[in-house]
Amino acid sequence: MKKSSRPEIPRKTIYRLSTYLRCLARLKEKQIQTVSSEALAKVAGVKPTQLRKDLAYFGTFGTRGLGYDVAELSNRIADELGTSRLQPVILVGVGNLGLALLSYRGFEKEGFEIVAAFDAEPDRPRDKKVSQTIFGMEDLPAFVQKHGVRMAIITVPAEAAQEVANALVSAGIVGILNFSPAVLSVPEDVMVNNVNVAIELENLSYFIQE
Amino acid sequence: MKKSSRPEIPRKTIYRLSTYLRCLARLKEKQIQTVSSEALAKVAGVKPTQLRKDLAYFGTFGTRGLGYDVAELSNRIADELGTSRLQPVILVGVGNLGLALLSYRGFEKEGFEIVAAFDAEPDRPRDKKVSQTIFGMEDLPAFVQKHGVRMAIITVPAEAAQEVANALVSAGIVGILNFSPAVLSVPEDVMVNNVNVAIELENLSYFIQE
Repeated sequence: MKKSSRPEIPRKTIYRLSTYLRCLARLKEKQIQTVSSEALAKVAGVKPTQLRKDLAYFGTFGTRGLGYDVAELSNRIADELGTSRLQPVILVGVGNLGLALLSYRGFEKEGFEIVAAFDAEPDRPRDKKVSQTIFGMEDLPAFVQKHGVRMAIITVPAEAAQEVANALVSAGIVGILNFSPAVLSVPEDVMVNNVNVAIELENLSYFIQE
Repeated sequence: MKKSSRPEIPRKTIYRLSTYLRCLARLKEKQIQTVSSEALAKVAGVKPTQLRKDLAYFGTFGTRGLGYDVAELSNRIADELGTSRLQPVILVGVGNLGLALLSYRGFEKEGFEIVAAFDAEPDRPRDKKVSQTIFGMEDLPAFVQKHGVRMAIITVPAEAAQEVANALVSAGIVGILNFSPAVLSVPEDVMVNNVNVAIELENLSYFIQE
C-alpha cells in the first residue's frame, strides 16, 4: 500500500518526525538511553501533547513512567520515514546549485545518496569536479529503471523545469524536490516539495519590516 | 510599528501572498489588466474564499463584478511584503552552497540583492569567482550598520551556525534564512526561516513509500 493513500496523517506531522529523529540522534550521541515525552518535546520545540499525538499515528510507543527508549523510537521513526536504508536520489540540472548539492557530503548520514546527475549538456565545462557521473537526459529512463530510483532533485532554470518534471515522471520518479521557481504540474500520485529561496526571503522580509 | 507585533496574520497567508505575487507577474507579462478572484485563485491553486480571506487582512481590494486590477494588486502585495524596493542581504559561509547562491542572478527581480559575503577564511582559494566581496567575520558589524542590512543567509556547517547567528544578531540582523541543519536559538524579535534539504527529502520519502 502506498502511504500517499493515508491522507489522514498531516504533512506537518511528518516534518515533525524529522525533527524528533534529529533530537533523538543528539540524545544517542550523548549516550542517553531513555527520554520522557516532556524532555523530548522540549528539545524539539513542541508541546508534549503534540509529540504524543504525532507518535500515536504510528502505534504505541514508550512505557508509562519510563519514557521512550531512544534507540527504539529512533529506529521506528526512521522506518516510518523510509530512511533506515540508504535511498538513491538523482539530480537534474548541473549548474551552480546542482554542483553544490552534488558535492555535499552530509546527505548519506541522513539516509540519502545522490547517485547520478543528468543535464541537457552533460559535457559542458564546469567550475567543479564531482564524484557522480553526469549523464545526458536520454540516459534518464534506463538509469531510473535499472537502479530503482524513486526520488529526484530538480535544479534547472524555471523555463526548463516542467519538461524535466515530465521526463522524470515518465521514467518512474514519484518524489520530486523542486529548487526551480516554477510551479510544477504532476499526476496525483507524484509528490513535489518545493524549495524557493526568494519566497523564503520574502516571507522573512514581511515579518521584519519596521 | 514592527509587523512582527501583528501575530494575527498567519505565516501561511504571507507565503500565499508570495504565490499571488508570482501569479500576478505572469498575468502582467501576458498584458492582462484585470482578473477575477476565481481566476486568480485558480492559477494560484487555492480556493477563491481563501484568496479573499488572505487579502482581507490588508484592506479592501477589487471592485465587485470587475475583479482586481492586476498592477494595483501586485504593487499592494509587494508593498506589504517589503519587496517593492531592492533589499540588501548578506551571506555568511562561502562554501559550495554559498558560492552557488552568490552567483545566482535571479534574486534581484524578486526584490533582493546579496550585497556582500562573510567567511571565517575570506582569502581561502575557491572554485569560483563571485562579484561580491568576501569579508572576514570581524568586518560584519561595521558593514551591517553602514549599509542598514537587516537580513542574512547562513550557509555555514551546522557546528558553526549558532555562533554565526549570535554574531549576526549582535550586529543588528533581524531576519535569518538558515541553510545549515542546526536549530538556531535567537531572541524573540529575530525571525529565522529554515531551508533543510535533508528534511525535505525525508518528507518526500515518507509519502512515496510503496
